[in-house]
Amino acid sequence: MPSSTEHRASVTVLGLGLMGTALAAALLKAGHDTTVWNRTASKTGPLAAQGATPAETAAEAITASPLVIVCLTTNDNVRGLLEAESDALAGRTVVNLTNGTPAQARELADWAAEHGITYIDGGIMAVPQMIATPAAYILYSGTDEEAYETHRPTLAALADTKWVGKDPGAAALYDLSLLTGMYGMVMGVAQAYALIGSGGVPAREFAPLLKDWVNAMTDGLVPGMAEALDSGQHLTDVSSLAVNQAALPNFLTAYAQQGLRDDLFRPLQDLLDRSIDEGYAADGLSRLVTLLKKD
Amino acid sequence: MPSSTEHRASVTVLGLGLMGTALAAALLKAGHDTTVWNRTASKTGPLAAQGATPAETAAEAITASPLVIVCLTTNDNVRGLLEAESDALAGRTVVNLTNGTPAQARELADWAAEHGITYIDGGIMAVPQMIATPAAYILYSGTDEEAYETHRPTLAALADTKWVGKDPGAAALYDLSLLTGMYGMVMGVAQAYALIGSGGVPAREFAPLLKDWVNAMTDGLVPGMAEALDSGQHLTDVSSLAVNQAALPNFLTAYAQQGLRDDLFRPLQDLLDRSIDEGYAADGLSRLVTLLKKD
Ligand SMILES: NC(=O)c1ccc[n+]([C@@H]2O[C@H](COP(=O)([O-])OP(=O)(O)OC[C@H]3O[C@@H](n4cnc5c(N)ncnc54)[C@H](OP(=O)(O)O)[C@@H]3O)[C@@H](O)[C@H]2O)c1
Ligand SMILES: NC(=O)c1ccc[n+]([C@@H]2O[C@H](COP(=O)([O-])OP(=O)(O)OC[C@H]3O[C@@H](n4cnc5c(N)ncnc54)[C@H](OP(=O)(O)O)[C@@H]3O)[C@@H](O)[C@H]2O)c1
Repeated sequence: MPSSTEHRASVTVLGLGLMGTALAAALLKAGHDTTVWNRTASKTGPLAAQGATPAETAAEAITASPLVIVCLTTNDNVRGLLEAESDALAGRTVVNLTNGTPAQARELADWAAEHGITYIDGGIMAVPQMIATPAAYILYSGTDEEAYETHRPTLAALADTKWVGKDPGAAALYDLSLLTGMYGMVMGVAQAYALIGSGGVPAREFAPLLKDWVNAMTDGLVPGMAEALDSGQHLTDVSSLAVNQAALPNFLTAYAQQGLRDDLFRPLQDLLDRSIDEGYAADGLSRLVTLLKKD
Repeated sequence: MPSSTEHRASVTVLGLGLMGTALAAALLKAGHDTTVWNRTASKTGPLAAQGATPAETAAEAITASPLVIVCLTTNDNVRGLLEAESDALAGRTVVNLTNGTPAQARELADWAAEHGITYIDGGIMAVPQMIATPAAYILYSGTDEEAYETHRPTLAALADTKWVGKDPGAAALYDLSLLTGMYGMVMGVAQAYALIGSGGVPAREFAPLLKDWVNAMTDGLVPGMAEALDSGQHLTDVSSLAVNQAALPNFLTAYAQQGLRDDLFRPLQDLLDRSIDEGYAADGLSRLVTLLKKD
């Protein structure tokens, strides 16, 4: 967790959106010499007030530190920025905490290697408010594990560190997989609030029930599915695909009757229908994972 | 929670699938005189061994008790069974714990009233393994709250009881809303396991990370969304629709590159795109709920 000021490093943060600002604030709080840059310069203000050094240009920010943390909207933005600053970056370590694909991370790693830049890819498992709290961690991967070890004491100011391997794409694979679980939950929770709201129930009244129920089901289903997947034994004594497939029309019908769109859940009906067509009626929900592979 | 044997009632369970069997077993364990019937008669065997009275016909089962619990696959199945047994059911209370829509519950309640049958609709917030454990509860609603109060001590053997009102459709509305949250999570977790599995990571190794992450996000997002929805203030300092919309192509691309279908998540991209088109780029995910209403 957040390191103490006994370790004091010089670090640069490029990109001061909601997340970059939280990252820079955590570095400052841990006592590091933190240089910050943002395309829209005004966003450096609050961090400067906390002790950060605002840089006028990205190049100026980069040359201030051996460790450069980047957090922009997309990896296309990152690629553009890094390419423009390749001279300044040479000999330094870039830690890219922007959301992206494994393939993008590998491409950036290859490009960086060609330009004498050490590249570490990362995936932030936190919202900005969780940065530097015990619940947060950041996944890291890259070809140069030694560089990672060198900078780990500094990175530890942001969140717990979790190294996932020398394939630069590994952090992105874990990150996208975890966020996939979250986005499914988001779809469910959004549609749930829309449905209960259509009946006039205030969201705040419904929230504790929804939170406890989704958590209880997650606690049971996530380990249960893993057992089934690793063993290949999908037969269930919990809830069959047949009974889920039979129930789903109730959801789509209720959405329509309550004046709601059903776009987010129609593909689940299709998937359940397919599971029955393919002979898996007595299997549990874990079987669906195997049906997500392209033929 | 499960009542003690000081209260001993006579109760019938129609439908002995995974859930009906768990319900009957809980009633037996609480000391109630339990009569059971299933279309496929062989399923009464294990319950008879636990002390249940198996009935040869549905009519025989129904006439054994003033309280008749029904748990079949769909409400069409329930409607068929109740219509065939309306004479035997007259004067008794039916508690229907089959998954269904609010409209179906209201129709069944109307039909029952015409036939002198008391109808209570219910929604089980548990998997069979959770029945008669502290985590489980059952939602109930119906026009005759007194009948519910009469039978509540017996129903308490199944799970905590939660009355949600005199609209017979209320229990189904809460039930479908909560299960909607769960089904979203199921889609997310299934796709997450497919993605991480495509990289060769064993599901059991990934499970603890996935469970903790989805739970942490649920804990933050569910109350956060409720605040935004009830106040109408959707502007965020957590994660904007713009940054989520920009990230989602990474998911769809990664699924494709890893040989997976993206059917379950394409509608989320469409919804995020629509949220940007409609001018909500700076809002948080709570805004999506309002976009699920049909125009
Ligand atoms: N927020 C979260 O909860 C969260 C959680 C985990 C991961 N992430 C990831 O972290 C990254 C940043 O997210 P955020 O929430 O901080 O987003 P944000 O608040 O929208 O900030 C985006 C940042 O990217 C900069 N930017 C965009 N295009 C640029 C370009 N072409 N050149 C230079 N700078 C550019 C923006 O600069 P301007 O100020 O000049 O526009 C801004 O600093 C994303 O990849 C996101 O997926 C976010
Ligand atoms: N399992 C869960 O986790 C869970 C959780 C909450 C709610 N539920 C709901 O509980 C209900 C039952 O689920 P389950 O898991 O017990 O399903 P199940 O194991 O598939 O059992 C279905 C039951 O319905 C009976 N049935 C179906 N059609 C019938 C008909 N036309 N006439 C008479 N009986 C008929 C079956 O009889 P046969 O044995 O003769 O086929 C069987 O007893 C469903 O509505 C489900 O959505 C289930």
